[in-house]
Amino acid sequence: MQLSARNVIAGRITAVKLGSVEAEVSLELSPGVVVTSVITRTSAERLGLKEGMEASAVIKASDVMLAVE
Amino acid sequence: MQLSARNVIAGRITAVKLGSVEAEVSLELSPGVVVTSVITRTSAERLGLKEGMEASAVIKASDVMLAVE
Amino acid sequence: MQLSARNVIAGRITAVKLGSVEAEVSLELSPGVVVTSVITRTSAERLGLKEGMEASAVIKASDVMLAVE
Amino acid sequence: MQLSARNVIAGRITAVKLGSVEAEVSLELSPGVVVTSVITRTSAERLGLKEGMEASAVIKASDVMLAVE
Amino acid sequence: MQLSARNVIAGRITAVKLGSVEAEVSLELSPGVVVTSVITRTSAERLGLKEGMEASAVIKASDVMLAVE
Amino acid sequence: MQLSARNVIAGRITAVKLGSVEAEVSLELSPGVVVTSVITRTSAERLGLKEGMEASAVIKASDVMLAVE
Repeated sequence: MQLSARNVIAGRITAVKLGSVEAEVSLELSPGVVVTSVITRTSAERLGLKEGMEASAVIKASDVMLAVE
Repeated sequence: MQLSARNVIAGRITAVKLGSVEAEVSLELSPGVVVTSVITRTSAERLGLKEGMEASAVIKASDVMLAVE
Repeated sequence: MQLSARNVIAGRITAVKLGSVEAEVSLELSPGVVVTSVITRTSAERLGLKEGMEASAVIKASDVMLAVE
Repeated sequence: MQLSARNVIAGRITAVKLGSVEAEVSLELSPGVVVTSVITRTSAERLGLKEGMEASAVIKASDVMLAVE
Repeated sequence: MQLSARNVIAGRITAVKLGSVEAEVSLELSPGVVVTSVITRTSAERLGLKEGMEASAVIKASDVMLAVE
Repeated sequence: MQLSARNVIAGRITAVKLGSVEAEVSLELSPGVVVTSVITRTSAERLGLKEGMEASAVIKASDVMLAVE
C-alpha cells in the first residue's frame, strides 16, 4: 500500500499506554528521536501494538508545524 | 514558550520550496530521518526559513498515525 | 500495511484536478457517495492517480465531525 | 448553515460508545460503507446522538488521505 | 444544523485573499481578536465569502493547541 | 519561539477537566469569546495548566473552518 501522506518514517515501539478510549504509543525513529502518537484504543489492539515491535509513523505534511527560536 | 503538542523535535532545514500559496520544507531530525512540512508561504517568509537553519518539527500526538506490516 | 486510522474505505477515482501546489481528487465510495480529498500535487503524481483507478480514502476517526439537523 | 468543509455526507448512526472524555460513533453512509468518528463525550451528549438517528459526516478535504495498492 | 465541533464562534470577515488553489480569510471574533482561516478557493467561492460578512469559525477542540510562557 | 501556525491568540484559562488520557481546557480570548481545547492529560500536567493562568491558543489556519447562515 502506498499513501498520499508525505511522511512514512520507520521506527520501533518503545512504550504503549492504554486509556479507556485512547492509547499513547512512543516510537523511536532513530537513537534519541522519539515521537508520541495518540490513537484509539481499538486501533492499538487491532494492530496488536507491543513494545519492541517495528512500526512506521505516518504524518501528513500539513500536520507538521515548524518552530524557530 | 512551552507547547501542548507532544512532539517538538529539533532538526536542521535541508530544503525550502516556495509555491504560490504554500511552502514545502524538509527538516532533518537525525542522519537519514527527514520530515516534510507544508505550511503557508506567508508563514515560511515570516519565519525567514532557509536551508541550513535550525528549526523544530511541532506535531500533535493525535496527528501521528501508525502503520505496521 | 495496516494503519491505525480507523477509516480505510475502498472506492474508485472519478476525477483528478491538478493545481500548482495541490491536487483535488474525487473518490466514489459507493453509488452516490463521493468524498473529496485535497493532497499535495507531488503526492498525486507519486501515486500516479488517474480517473477510474481503485483507491482507498484513509481518514482518522478524530477527523470525522458529525452534524445533526 | 453552510460549511467550508468540502465533505458533508448524510448517513445513519449505527453505534455510539461513550468513554470518559471521548465518544466513538459509527455512521452508515450507504449499505456497507460505515465511517467511525471520535468526538468529545460532551459533544455526543450535547447532540443527543443515538443509534438509528440521522446525522452527517463532516470531513475537510485536506483530512482525507488516499492509499493505492 | 448542530456540529460536534466544540468551537463555533461567531465573527465578521475582515479580509478575503484568493490564491490559485486556496483562500485566506480573516475573521474578527471580537475587537482585536482575529483568526485566520485557509480553506480551498472552491469553498470560499461556494460560500460567497466577502469582507464585512458575518461568519463563524468552526474549530475542533482537538485542533486547538495551548502554549504557556 | 516563533511558530508557523498562523493563529497564536492570548487568553486566560477558565476551566481544566482531566480525563484518563485527555484533558479539556477552556480558554477565554476576550470577554464572552471562549475556546475549548482537548489535549493529552500528560501535556496538561506537563504545562501545569490551572484556572486563572495566562495561555495562548495555537491553531493552524487550515484547521479553522468557516460557516455561514
